[in-house]
Amino acid sequence: MIYLDNSATTYPKPQSVRDALYQSTISFGANPGRGGYRMSTETASQIYKVRENLAEMFGAESEENVIFTLNCTHALNMAIKGLVRKGGHAVTSCLEHNSVMRPLEKLSENGNFSYDTVRVSDDDEKTVRNFERKIRQNTSFIVCTYASNVFGDILPIKKLGLLAKKYKIPLIVDAAQAAGILDIDMKRDNISCLCMPGHKGLYGPAGTGVLLLSDDTHLDTIVEGGTGSESKSLIQPSFLPDRFECGTQNTAGIIALGKGIEFLKREKISSIHDRECFLIESLYGNFLKDKDVIVYNKFDRKKFVPILSFNFADRTGEETASLLSDYGIALRGGFHCNPMAHEHYGTLSTGTARVSVSAFNRKNDINYLINCINKIAKSKKV
Amino acid sequence: MIYLDNSATTYPKPQSVRDALYQSTISFGANPGRGGYRMSTETASQIYKVRENLAEMFGAESEENVIFTLNCTHALNMAIKGLVRKGGHAVTSCLEHNSVMRPLEKLSENGNFSYDTVRVSDDDEKTVRNFERKIRQNTSFIVCTYASNVFGDILPIKKLGLLAKKYKIPLIVDAAQAAGILDIDMKRDNISCLCMPGHKGLYGPAGTGVLLLSDDTHLDTIVEGGTGSESKSLIQPSFLPDRFECGTQNTAGIIALGKGIEFLKREKISSIHDRECFLIESLYGNFLKDKDVIVYNKFDRKKFVPILSFNFADRTGEETASLLSDYGIALRGGFHCNPMAHEHYGTLSTGTARVSVSAFNRKNDINYLINCINKIAKSKKV
Repeated sequence: MIYLDNSATTYPKPQSVRDALYQSTISFGANPGRGGYRMSTETASQIYKVRENLAEMFGAESEENVIFTLNCTHALNMAIKGLVRKGGHAVTSCLEHNSVMRPLEKLSENGNFSYDTVRVSDDDEKTVRNFERKIRQNTSFIVCTYASNVFGDILPIKKLGLLAKKYKIPLIVDAAQAAGILDIDMKRDNISCLCMPGHKGLYGPAGTGVLLLSDDTHLDTIVEGGTGSESKSLIQPSFLPDRFECGTQNTAGIIALGKGIEFLKREKISSIHDRECFLIESLYGNFLKDKDVIVYNKFDRKKFVPILSFNFADRTGEETASLLSDYGIALRGGFHCNPMAHEHYGTLSTGTARVSVSAFNRKNDINYLINCINKIAKSKKV
Repeated sequence: MIYLDNSATTYPKPQSVRDALYQSTISFGANPGRGGYRMSTETASQIYKVRENLAEMFGAESEENVIFTLNCTHALNMAIKGLVRKGGHAVTSCLEHNSVMRPLEKLSENGNFSYDTVRVSDDDEKTVRNFERKIRQNTSFIVCTYASNVFGDILPIKKLGLLAKKYKIPLIVDAAQAAGILDIDMKRDNISCLCMPGHKGLYGPAGTGVLLLSDDTHLDTIVEGGTGSESKSLIQPSFLPDRFECGTQNTAGIIALGKGIEFLKREKISSIHDRECFLIESLYGNFLKDKDVIVYNKFDRKKFVPILSFNFADRTGEETASLLSDYGIALRGGFHCNPMAHEHYGTLSTGTARVSVSAFNRKNDINYLINCINKIAKSKKV
């Protein structure tokens, strides 16, 4: 199998991540923060180290501002619903995943909340102006993806951070396709809530997500329960991270995520990014020569994360992915949980097939993909 | 280490569970339900098998009624908040964990919702009458633990199921200390929402929880997002399990949980239960002879799950656990996220130390605990 679906989840995981997942169930198998005996406190201390690493990597004010979640979607729901005010309003982009759109749509159901969707332009200044124009007196937050999961477009987060700061509005960032891939510093970039999966660019296992909060962000809770702290009180604790971590967490997954972050530190995010961009550039260069293939964006590493959406001419994304699957190539075809981006790119009727690479892909993988595409394009199948 | 904190999480896990956790990251490392290629569909099919096993084990109407969550607390929040109606009301017991109490308390904050807490009696009929007396016209649901996580008291769930049926009110059951331990059949027992952790009596890894819904239960969502289904729609799908499973799930954890369930099927829940009760009975028998130890309930396997709370005389639960921790005994001391149960038992000032066993504990573990208790009790420490 040639795996090119790394935007869904990175595969393979580093050996150290797999080993930690197994070993944690033996060495750190107790419930952290629930007991005073040795294995419980040792497990808690392992989890704490992962918080420290995440806080450092993403410029959070302290390790306590790092909250573990099931996945990025849960982190986004916690941020969006935690900031929502009755009669409130949000501004978002036209490239958002359903993990942002469905919560916004749900909140608008009863008429107590509304949102505006703004067009993302090639010109960053114009994009920011589009956002600014929609800010109102009652705007509760801006929520926006760092990079599109379908076409890879990078949004001008730093400029949107400045805009949010100017209007004193919190900025929620969906870093599903950016965490571990681009340089993000929530303090420097004025991000209030930074949401990410642990199992994509951070190379942790599925079942891990992270919500990083700035000190001045005060979220309401959407889930309450036992936290192992202030146990005598029926009121959810107010301090971080306990306020947002109820019940038993995915301990082995979080400890393994820590190994993914160590892998990134060792390999360096910028070096991985360089290699991934090189792979997508070489694929893009080949696509250009092929008339039987439609590519939907002009790949430029300054404007896109290393993701490329394409289709065989007259084929849907699902059909394109299925034809390549017969050759042992794993990539996703369809709508990628993002009708908004397809509407923007004019692909809402077909969807797209998406190529996304990781630190483990090599030039040979891309060469094989190109050969298969050429073979299929030349055959009568298309 | 002698591990006796199995009510927090079972330890060790069966070897097959640990192996599956590791192996899944290799063999089933794709994102299920997101791609049409082989590893993605094979991963989805593994997850599906776990749904089938859970549905069969707990008498759910179909495997689609099985929803995976981060933990039992998230399952309880989804059930409670999914059933809440404005101006609604709930009835609950006096033994509930903060995973039930804190969501109820949170919902009551704005005055749009209220709840009553009823006393659990030694006499099941009386307990049911206590519940019945509190049912009102606007009662939205009954929510109740199957067994106390502090003292082990089993509640008359079958009788409460009949009561709920009589009044056509949904019954939410917190099976945190009962799933994999007692015989539960949600159809037979008239349970609408059955909430459980995957990492306690089901022997799966931490980071797994389950919400089982009856066919006639229609919950609102508290989290929305990408489901890999109806991707073109900004509205959360209405069908199960997609409606309640957003974003990437804990695939390796769920597949490993499947191995935990296979372990239970092999070993038989009733046989494990017999052995666990025997261990707690032998501990209880020894406690009776010791005046320096306070035991808070009269253990009877028909009325309690195999959990025992105790303290050294004049010592708090935390101190008691800490003294035993010096002998390498791992058990939890304190309030166990449950002030309600401590109020009921009169231990709100001290908390308790809790002994909880699993399929992996042996008579030797209990003998060692008894010896240590005797040693400490006789020494000047107490």
